[in-house]
Amino acid sequence: MLKTENSQKPHDRMAAYLAEDLQAVNDLIRTRMASEHAPRIPEVTAHLVEAGGKRLRPMLTLAAAHLCGYEGGYHIHLAATVEFIHTATLLHDDVVDESGQRRGRPTANLLWDNKSSVLVGDYLFSRSFQLMVETGSLRVLDILSNASATIAEGEVLQLTASQDLATTEAIYLQVVRGKTAALFSAATEVGGVIAEAPVAHVQALYDYGDALGIAFQIVDDLLDFQGDAGAIGKNIGDDFRERKLTMPLIKAVARADTEERAFWMRTIEKGRQSEGDLDTALDLLHKHGALRDTAAQARDWAARAKSALAPLPDHKIKGMLSDLADYVVERIT
Amino acid sequence: MLKTENSQKPHDRMAAYLAEDLQAVNDLIRTRMASEHAPRIPEVTAHLVEAGGKRLRPMLTLAAAHLCGYEGGYHIHLAATVEFIHTATLLHDDVVDESGQRRGRPTANLLWDNKSSVLVGDYLFSRSFQLMVETGSLRVLDILSNASATIAEGEVLQLTASQDLATTEAIYLQVVRGKTAALFSAATEVGGVIAEAPVAHVQALYDYGDALGIAFQIVDDLLDFQGDAGAIGKNIGDDFRERKLTMPLIKAVARADTEERAFWMRTIEKGRQSEGDLDTALDLLHKHGALRDTAAQARDWAARAKSALAPLPDHKIKGMLSDLADYVVERIT
Repeated sequence: MLKTENSQKPHDRMAAYLAEDLQAVNDLIRTRMASEHAPRIPEVTAHLVEAGGKRLRPMLTLAAAHLCGYEGGYHIHLAATVEFIHTATLLHDDVVDESGQRRGRPTANLLWDNKSSVLVGDYLFSRSFQLMVETGSLRVLDILSNASATIAEGEVLQLTASQDLATTEAIYLQVVRGKTAALFSAATEVGGVIAEAPVAHVQALYDYGDALGIAFQIVDDLLDFQGDAGAIGKNIGDDFRERKLTMPLIKAVARADTEERAFWMRTIEKGRQSEGDLDTALDLLHKHGALRDTAAQARDWAARAKSALAPLPDHKIKGMLSDLADYVVERIT
Repeated sequence: MLKTENSQKPHDRMAAYLAEDLQAVNDLIRTRMASEHAPRIPEVTAHLVEAGGKRLRPMLTLAAAHLCGYEGGYHIHLAATVEFIHTATLLHDDVVDESGQRRGRPTANLLWDNKSSVLVGDYLFSRSFQLMVETGSLRVLDILSNASATIAEGEVLQLTASQDLATTEAIYLQVVRGKTAALFSAATEVGGVIAEAPVAHVQALYDYGDALGIAFQIVDDLLDFQGDAGAIGKNIGDDFRERKLTMPLIKAVARADTEERAFWMRTIEKGRQSEGDLDTALDLLHKHGALRDTAAQARDWAARAKSALAPLPDHKIKGMLSDLADYVVERIT
């Protein structure tokens, strides 16, 4: 029994531990997704919300609340809030990226259209807003409204930074904090806040979520160059084709000689790509150790996430959160 | 002096009366629109927020707060909130699918692109959310989160109702309440709520905003068939070409004989339109008195808006709000 439990992935162990809460979150999501007047809404969202998403973000909220000894019921609302914000972001991301695949399935905007993706995303945003208002906690509202602004700002920054070889690692980090880490850190923080945890514990939860989110996104960007398309649900080299300056590319560009720089200028800034360019890009990434160094940075952020947990009380969940940080970077080893 | 004042439009008289507040709202909008990290944001919003918008919705909030004797400063936040939500909605409305090009005035997404319209709209939504959290009023947050959900639902409903001849006047009214009246009524209601006005006054403000918003949208839909293209900033017949079932069309379809019904089936449901079809549509609208009856309904909603004001205290602004309701329908006489 113990052996089986330990052989499970940390994410699955946490899901098993939080099974009852997760069921309540799923029920709340289904109820609040429904629209009496606009039946297209669940049509569009069902395939995203129901499609076996890992529910990582809502689980972080539930875990943080439990870790801080919360005994009320509003952590369910907050977990659903976080998942709605995440889903709305995916829907809007599908419009902007013109990507063909999400979680291994065709994106909403191929099955429906851009307009539905935008408007149904807006609907989920406003639903999430209603859910958090129901908690009656102005601190929670403050945290989540700030997170929403940071997410939107990060997405716009990414838009302006892409195709621009002058993008630095500092700008990349700002984008990543916006598009990914802001929701991770808000998810853990509000779990502590709703439990009325001491300031030091809330700060620890924020720091954990922030570092975990950054590690998670760096790994994602790394896997775009070395992952298994079947396993990650998207194609190798998508970011290269979309001319996104992610960490591996930023490192390779910084280390490029004149000829290599001309290659990056043509493929990324000017967007003139032809067959074989992805292979050349991969060769350059390997030559300059860009993938290796990016992986090291991801591991560093995972380690920071683990250290952040130190001030938090002993709890079964604390170990699971620590293992989760390891697991996020295990995907690249 | 008095004569000059009375010869002004009600909207301009109100703007003159609220000039100091409106200046504060404009300053707050400019400050909060700015993004340190993403300079594209004010680039995209400036042409919407700065371009001589009538500021009708924020003015309603300011007017309601003054009418209820509010002496604090949060009505400025709420007025900016309402304008941000309105602008975000316009940006998202401008997102088009390749198959459905918009005609008329240049939209943000022609000047920039779909990506910017979606993400900058999201940014404004989250900024509006931050602004209302700053007021510290959970009732205000409740009203505005509900309004946001109603707006999004109305927009999705409009999407599914368009091109569908089965659309009834009841569905049309639901769409209009969502896409237009929900923000009008929330704008007036929160003005009363922040002033801690008695329940009956808050209800009166809600009812006024609701009826005014409905009248406003019906007039807009009517002008699409009979307006002066220069004055309304879009072309006659846009809704017909986009196959939108607005009040005048719904009435004409309901009164159609077999042959006319075939015409509507072809042009609206199947979308096979050719030269001269708009003229035929206009003839049918006139023949069945659809424009005349739609105008009567708009006037009826404007009258309801004026009656709704009855319970409110005597105040210079009360007369201006009443005149504003008249003015909204004057555009069609």
